[in-house]
Amino acid sequence: MNNTRPLILVTNDDGIFAKGIRNLVEVMIELGDVVIVAPDSPQSGMGHAVTINNILRVNEVAYPVEGVKAYSCSGTPVDCVKLAIYEVLEKKPDLIVSGINHGANSSINVIYSGTMSAAVEGAVESIPSIGYSLLDFSEDADFIPSRPYVKMIAERVISNGIPVGTCLNVNIPKLPASEIKGVMVCRQAIGYWADAFDKRTAPGGKTYYWMTGSFTNPDKGEDTDDWALNHGYVSVVPTQFDLTDHHTIGQLNQWDLNL
Amino acid sequence: MNNTRPLILVTNDDGIFAKGIRNLVEVMIELGDVVIVAPDSPQSGMGHAVTINNILRVNEVAYPVEGVKAYSCSGTPVDCVKLAIYEVLEKKPDLIVSGINHGANSSINVIYSGTMSAAVEGAVESIPSIGYSLLDFSEDADFIPSRPYVKMIAERVISNGIPVGTCLNVNIPKLPASEIKGVMVCRQAIGYWADAFDKRTAPGGKTYYWMTGSFTNPDKGEDTDDWALNHGYVSVVPTQFDLTDHHTIGQLNQWDLNL
Repeated sequence: MNNTRPLILVTNDDGIFAKGIRNLVEVMIELGDVVIVAPDSPQSGMGHAVTINNILRVNEVAYPVEGVKAYSCSGTPVDCVKLAIYEVLEKKPDLIVSGINHGANSSINVIYSGTMSAAVEGAVESIPSIGYSLLDFSEDADFIPSRPYVKMIAERVISNGIPVGTCLNVNIPKLPASEIKGVMVCRQAIGYWADAFDKRTAPGGKTYYWMTGSFTNPDKGEDTDDWALNHGYVSVVPTQFDLTDHHTIGQLNQWDLNL
Repeated sequence: MNNTRPLILVTNDDGIFAKGIRNLVEVMIELGDVVIVAPDSPQSGMGHAVTINNILRVNEVAYPVEGVKAYSCSGTPVDCVKLAIYEVLEKKPDLIVSGINHGANSSINVIYSGTMSAAVEGAVESIPSIGYSLLDFSEDADFIPSRPYVKMIAERVISNGIPVGTCLNVNIPKLPASEIKGVMVCRQAIGYWADAFDKRTAPGGKTYYWMTGSFTNPDKGEDTDDWALNHGYVSVVPTQFDLTDHHTIGQLNQWDLNL
């Protein structure tokens, strides 16, 4: 490999042969040397799961983009990042990109998302990382309007860097290129899923459930990713992994916590 | 049920018949009416995974503690919380407790932990929630020294409440009762796992891996959970689900993000 080009690790949660990761790879080869380590099957909703009670497999596979090494992995997106860094790659990557996800990962979805968990794992490893998602769940989604934004944001991260421990959560509205208004830096909207379960009966008579539900956003701020996306902007949320509610530490210190 | 007692949902990630959840249930029946909805098999390391591409099953099971309703669920800890709230329970619980986990969930472990993800899901649902973990991975760990702390902290949450969107991450050192120095309110230590993979060959000749690794904490702060646990204290970290790196928003707004 040409050592003057950045080494870019590409992963996702929709599986190594999804259309979204193909588009991401085609953009990234313009910016650096690309290695793919991605799940061999869809891993949506896997959050930050890691495989600790089972074995992991990694196999080199032929990938239809010239000059790209590709490995499929039996594990989760976070497993892929860990295996890539500690087993597959000869040096730490300069950039980790995950996606392009088929479907939104804005607001609360960041914690359920395998795509974003891969990027967060990159941040844990102090590697600049970006998760990309398009607001279109379709397997055949049109990623063409996303590509200039995907490239530009990766270029900025490569040239500017980002603080250690921070990654970017980039969501792109499902709009023709001419209708995307630009990029907005945002905070995560404080929304949630009002879950519902579709209760069914199996042929043998036993009950089972499918998770359904609808996203609900009571957060009316105009500085959120949800607001940006609803108004035609690409949202960029700097994302980190310290879950401490720092503001509440003082309050808890007022409690009597003696036995 | 007696409506003057709080309704307490109990879950975990080690499975419904683990010793840790049994101890948690035995403490919680002193405080309220208890319903268990917990995984039918171990779900350690599942993070915030949800089951969206497969079916879920829930079955009432006999549980060896009088007056306790118990349901085993085929899904992840987060699935258990969602199913409990939206399908199993007749009203929203007043408190969700998860654990007692066999093994630490301090520092970065909070993002990999099924135990803590269940508590975080409770916070997403605006329900006061606590995740408990004992620093002992053994299946036969001794939870007796933990029990007074588990009870006292739950009592405080029931009587004081906690801010909407916040839950508690409680870790308990593996020490005799007489050597536990008390409770310390902390922030999450910024540590990580230096992963390693144990590479093996299957009988058929194919390579596979087991994830191993060692926890590494470069964070020398004396206000962290890791510090507290290493010094004999029970750690309590207020934990929330907004992953936004708010401090970096201003910096990103200096970038040229135009195409």
